[in-house]
Amino acid sequence: MTTAVSDLLPTLDEADLARLDAWWRAANYLTIGQIYLQANPLLREPLTAEHIKPRLLGHWGTSPGLSFVYAHVSRLIRHTGQDTIYLTGPGHGGPALVAAGYLEDTYTEVYPAVTRDELGLRTLFRQFSSPGGIPSHVSVTTPGSIHEGGELGYVLVHAFGAVFDNPGLLAVAVVGDGEAETGPLEGSWKGVSFLNPKHDGAVLPILHLNGAKISGPTVLGRKDPAEVRRLLGGHGYDVIEVEGDDIPGMHHRFAAALAEAWGRIREIQRSAREGDWDGTRPTWPLIVLRTPKGWTGPAEVDGVKVTGTFRSHQVPLSGVRDNPGHLALLEQWLKSYRPDELFDDSGAPVPLVRSHNPSGDRRMSANPHANGGVLTRELDLPGFRDYAVEVKSPASDRAESTRKLGEFLRDIYRDNPDRFRLFSPDETNSNRLGAVFEVSDRSFLEHVDASDVAIGPDGRVMEVLSEHNCHGWLEGYTLTGRHGLFATYEAFAMVSASQTIQHGKWLEEAEHLPWRARVPSLNVLLTSTAWRNDHNGFSHQGPGLIQNVLTQRGTVSRVYLPPDANCLLSVADHCFRSRSYINLIVIDKQPQLQYLTMDEAVDHCARGAGIWDWASDSPDDPDIVLACADDVVTMETVAAADILRQRLPGLRVRVVNVVDLMTLVRPKDHPHGMSETQFSELFTDTVDVVFAFHGYPGAIHQLVHGRPDADRFRVRGFIEQGTTTTPFDMTVRNRASRYHLVMDALNNARRLPQGASDLKAWCESQLARHEHYVVEHLEDMPEVRDWTLGDWATS
Amino acid sequence: MTTAVSDLLPTLDEADLARLDAWWRAANYLTIGQIYLQANPLLREPLTAEHIKPRLLGHWGTSPGLSFVYAHVSRLIRHTGQDTIYLTGPGHGGPALVAAGYLEDTYTEVYPAVTRDELGLRTLFRQFSSPGGIPSHVSVTTPGSIHEGGELGYVLVHAFGAVFDNPGLLAVAVVGDGEAETGPLEGSWKGVSFLNPKHDGAVLPILHLNGAKISGPTVLGRKDPAEVRRLLGGHGYDVIEVEGDDIPGMHHRFAAALAEAWGRIREIQRSAREGDWDGTRPTWPLIVLRTPKGWTGPAEVDGVKVTGTFRSHQVPLSGVRDNPGHLALLEQWLKSYRPDELFDDSGAPVPLVRSHNPSGDRRMSANPHANGGVLTRELDLPGFRDYAVEVKSPASDRAESTRKLGEFLRDIYRDNPDRFRLFSPDETNSNRLGAVFEVSDRSFLEHVDASDVAIGPDGRVMEVLSEHNCHGWLEGYTLTGRHGLFATYEAFAMVSASQTIQHGKWLEEAEHLPWRARVPSLNVLLTSTAWRNDHNGFSHQGPGLIQNVLTQRGTVSRVYLPPDANCLLSVADHCFRSRSYINLIVIDKQPQLQYLTMDEAVDHCARGAGIWDWASDSPDDPDIVLACADDVVTMETVAAADILRQRLPGLRVRVVNVVDLMTLVRPKDHPHGMSETQFSELFTDTVDVVFAFHGYPGAIHQLVHGRPDADRFRVRGFIEQGTTTTPFDMTVRNRASRYHLVMDALNNARRLPQGASDLKAWCESQLARHEHYVVEHLEDMPEVRDWTLGDWATS
Repeated sequence: MTTAVSDLLPTLDEADLARLDAWWRAANYLTIGQIYLQANPLLREPLTAEHIKPRLLGHWGTSPGLSFVYAHVSRLIRHTGQDTIYLTGPGHGGPALVAAGYLEDTYTEVYPAVTRDELGLRTLFRQFSSPGGIPSHVSVTTPGSIHEGGELGYVLVHAFGAVFDNPGLLAVAVVGDGEAETGPLEGSWKGVSFLNPKHDGAVLPILHLNGAKISGPTVLGRKDPAEVRRLLGGHGYDVIEVEGDDIPGMHHRFAAALAEAWGRIREIQRSAREGDWDGTRPTWPLIVLRTPKGWTGPAEVDGVKVTGTFRSHQVPLSGVRDNPGHLALLEQWLKSYRPDELFDDSGAPVPLVRSHNPSGDRRMSANPHANGGVLTRELDLPGFRDYAVEVKSPASDRAESTRKLGEFLRDIYRDNPDRFRLFSPDETNSNRLGAVFEVSDRSFLEHVDASDVAIGPDGRVMEVLSEHNCHGWLEGYTLTGRHGLFATYEAFAMVSASQTIQHGKWLEEAEHLPWRARVPSLNVLLTSTAWRNDHNGFSHQGPGLIQNVLTQRGTVSRVYLPPDANCLLSVADHCFRSRSYINLIVIDKQPQLQYLTMDEAVDHCARGAGIWDWASDSPDDPDIVLACADDVVTMETVAAADILRQRLPGLRVRVVNVVDLMTLVRPKDHPHGMSETQFSELFTDTVDVVFAFHGYPGAIHQLVHGRPDADRFRVRGFIEQGTTTTPFDMTVRNRASRYHLVMDALNNARRLPQGASDLKAWCESQLARHEHYVVEHLEDMPEVRDWTLGDWATS
Repeated sequence: MTTAVSDLLPTLDEADLARLDAWWRAANYLTIGQIYLQANPLLREPLTAEHIKPRLLGHWGTSPGLSFVYAHVSRLIRHTGQDTIYLTGPGHGGPALVAAGYLEDTYTEVYPAVTRDELGLRTLFRQFSSPGGIPSHVSVTTPGSIHEGGELGYVLVHAFGAVFDNPGLLAVAVVGDGEAETGPLEGSWKGVSFLNPKHDGAVLPILHLNGAKISGPTVLGRKDPAEVRRLLGGHGYDVIEVEGDDIPGMHHRFAAALAEAWGRIREIQRSAREGDWDGTRPTWPLIVLRTPKGWTGPAEVDGVKVTGTFRSHQVPLSGVRDNPGHLALLEQWLKSYRPDELFDDSGAPVPLVRSHNPSGDRRMSANPHANGGVLTRELDLPGFRDYAVEVKSPASDRAESTRKLGEFLRDIYRDNPDRFRLFSPDETNSNRLGAVFEVSDRSFLEHVDASDVAIGPDGRVMEVLSEHNCHGWLEGYTLTGRHGLFATYEAFAMVSASQTIQHGKWLEEAEHLPWRARVPSLNVLLTSTAWRNDHNGFSHQGPGLIQNVLTQRGTVSRVYLPPDANCLLSVADHCFRSRSYINLIVIDKQPQLQYLTMDEAVDHCARGAGIWDWASDSPDDPDIVLACADDVVTMETVAAADILRQRLPGLRVRVVNVVDLMTLVRPKDHPHGMSETQFSELFTDTVDVVFAFHGYPGAIHQLVHGRPDADRFRVRGFIEQGTTTTPFDMTVRNRASRYHLVMDALNNARRLPQGASDLKAWCESQLARHEHYVVEHLEDMPEVRDWTLGDWATS
């Protein structure tokens, strides 16, 4: 794969310079055109106010730098054949990347309406940041991009994720100096500590310092350059610096810098791949590029300095429609790029400009890695049934469900050494997934010593104490067509919630673009859940991510709450086969009751929800429905049904378990939503439902909205009552214990047999007994020792 | 305030060493006791399995290092009188901080049941990580802490926030090497670029590298020390290193390092405060402390190395209850601290240990800054009515509401130069709050040049392109008793959503601790909202934070959606006067219709929701209720009511606006919840309600759950249909436009006059006309130019 690549980028000669500079001027011209023009795209008549868009939007400041780097990387590709993608951290430089795609023909290939002529240019300009058009940021609509430029901070995590297990790929990642202030970006330089030069590709970060953000300076842009060098050196990089605004001087200097960086990358890769590497982390190159913000734009406007200041961030000439002076300045500015030399009579880029483009898939705007679905190979999945827990009778034995998943993951790793990774913030063992270490170490390129276990430079399990890195790496990995799982503590999944949301938006938008192939889903396992962080306390108890995924469109959002190991395996198998979803899988890691045989689990998960006859009593015509979704509250529900069966035999109780939360929604709102008939078959139309839910009760209220008589759903769930306590006490504090569920059933049943009030009194006495143990006799802690169904249901 | 402080920390002499070391041994002993013992706390009888807790929880690994640093800082305080708080990044070292508070007497002062004798020690040990007790992490229950140790990454932001405008305060912040891998922590070193040595206090970061996290090594712990030095130097610090495990050598070396750091801090402060400072950022000191993980613990267990490895992270001897060898090892380990020398016959710390404590408020566990409510001074608030927008008739004129808020903030800044700050990710101007720059620059200690505006070292407006920094600084600022506002783009508020949630949990828990004084609320202004990010596109459209704040307890969660400037001012005034809430204020920044005079606004906001008679038609006995909450959809609702009034005069329409979202909830679930009577007065008991909501519709469904016939609420809101388009098209895509609302009203009204079907047809034709303009005639874009109530309601 890498054999065809040349190690040498030759010195920039005059011919190369001519096309490079022409291409760059063309890209800048098209960028400004997108921001300003709605007509007269090639200035073939004098510019008038009518040619100007009514609403001026877009970001000029960062764009010329982005195009400059892009042009030089294209030249690298032309000379070396290197398979390369381009990631734009300053994503608001969207028009620059659109311009690049247009100059490379990709834009027209993907969007045939944007033709390669004057009319096409007009369309290109008009669609930009216009109603029905494209956003002003690099987005899913931008060919060649796997990186949305709205929420800043993730360009390096996406770049590293893209090159893991992609030894032939180079990801050039431009980091803006605004973005560089974000926590996630600062935390992502350390990707090199997890990057293997043999089986992974390379990331070339280009820190583009132009000194300002929207309305002020930036920290890195204004620090002493020596300090910046020290910082990046401290992150483990070999810093190459280029600074200036002179042309052609900057072209020569940047070409030389890129040649140097490229040479070092190839040297690192060759020495690692040809066998004389001891596993030490290489010192990868990084380029710091300092150019004025808004480079090549109007130096001054109305006597105020613009280029090189925050004033060039968005639209440097804002008065062009009303101010003839501004209009003239704009025309002069546009003409400074000599568009007549760049576009032919028809309006297409001239051969000189076109000759700068790499060919076919090597064009960065057309690179298939940036449309990873086209490269995706299905996982070679071992049969998940092989990992089944044997269940002789429901609710009688315990197992650590995630441990079975760990064995499944281990064999997925074994069978897919080039396209599957697990990402976790240092919790693989804690989450009982450690079986993976039988086939792969954790990746770590810093010093390893004798006390370390399952850690080394060749490892492919990704552990870093950063949810942002884990999530972002997985995004980059899946957007380039590979598969994976992010496993994390439920509460701290909120750290990267905005990434979950933004990735969902990307997937939602991609659905509307026929040219974007569907990519493997983003699978998130939430474990160490709220209910079983009894010992860690309140800060660790938060089922909030579900709430957020529920807000996403039905085309991407999936939430699964498997109650036991066999259901978890079935759900995981389904998720690993799926495309373009956010799959949230929620299950705790502690030993837990097992309910379903594998055959039953497969059937149950396929339906997404079902009646558990074995847990019910005369379920056909129930007086009350006890519904549940997750592991812990499912146990409480089963226990409650057991108590009712034993202590109030005349009450007809139906137990319904929900694995696939989205089945609750009306089918018009989610593709998994069950039909009205199915819903009635499970929940009846009129009988009250006591629903014990893993997360915040409001989630169920919103999901069943619009279902027949939705008011009859009484939901118990996590009501933010947490502390350091016992697992059972967590259910008591949140009023979701078996005793609360029994009392809810009695308070809402359609019909009550004799003895109900005795049973209520008994429940209250049980809760009083519990209170006594928890509050006054800590040492006894019977719930900790004896927290099993049998003990509690019959005592 | 700083005059009494000595600049010199003397060399550690023998007497000081004796008490320092005794104190440290006592702290370590108490730490281990908390993890293991439920009886026999002073080992006054031979240790048996019965003395061991049934469930061993807690984190030993980081604890001895935390106590070591604490002990040395206490000595600094004793010698210099410096007012100091201690922030524990490795928050799972909770028992170490509890031990410190106990040794300093604070624990007993705060929790009298934990007496200063053997019985008290038993209680101290038993409560730790036990049901009904305290968490294993540093938490709100820990005296002296403003920093919860669950979700990692925020120790430096809290420290910087605490010292802003606190010139006499030193915040010692221990950063763990696990935590140092998180994005938020890496992004927070830059606090020094915003710290003014004159009017702010000092932060002394101590990076404690013990090399491992839960089950593996850490990046900084295993990097070449020269690289770590370079990194921290690059962040702007002067690095002082201490490494080892030898005692007393480590005491001498650390004491010297601390003396050096202290000397440099005082030198920086003196030179800045005595007038010869040119505004250049000082190079603040930072200590890197390298000790073995689990220092002073068992070196090996069962032949496997423990101290210095990940195995000492939690409970290094896990088999003590069943394994006599482990039990003996534990006893030997505990006795290695020579408890008989440390505690007297009654079990109280001996005078030598006690003599190490600073006195009174100087004890870090008793420092009032860490219980900031006791220091809080109310804001000197200008009358908010002075900033009113004049409203001659409702819905006729436009104003940028946040611009009025900006003027209010400007004068708050002016009148409270020592206790109010605005925090924003580079968006103060963009969000129309720029009036504050009339009285304060932005804080910036890096190079400032001539093109900069309102930026400088003496600035007190905080702008950094990091939601994590902004949020965290405000948390630190308010937890130490001062006031502020975090203003941010609505969509990107999700970046720091986990901080909002964790801070909410802190405030929720603090409510239960009578000794914790209530602190100023965390005020968050969400602007540049989903509905008006039409131009930026889908990634900028996300009202998700509301959803998350709704999950918090009613004691802290507040969500306000003022529809116009006067309501915004009234709400803001209320929020600035409040304590211990998360106040979310949601309003867009664009010019928007104004509805209420200031008197009306004050009345409306005080009620939280009300009927708008002027927008209604025969509201007394309505056929349909049109409800709304926010600015944009309120305009659509008012327009819909206008259309109905004009085109279907017989229909009785009531318009209800909701400012305080929590009024919708039943009073048993939230203190702001309106009574059933009030609810019926607004929404009736039976008439259908078409509710246009700012955020996701599910939020309203969950809020009105349990209200009379909640199924009758038909909610329109943001249904994740976004793109680059016009503001009006955003409402169309999300089916919340005036035409959709009219059709909803017609479909759900109790009674329909003649002409309803004509009106429906008209609405459909209006939507078709809109579709035509948006999709086919971009150049016309009438919605952009003419998006006013009158134009649309009557056209």
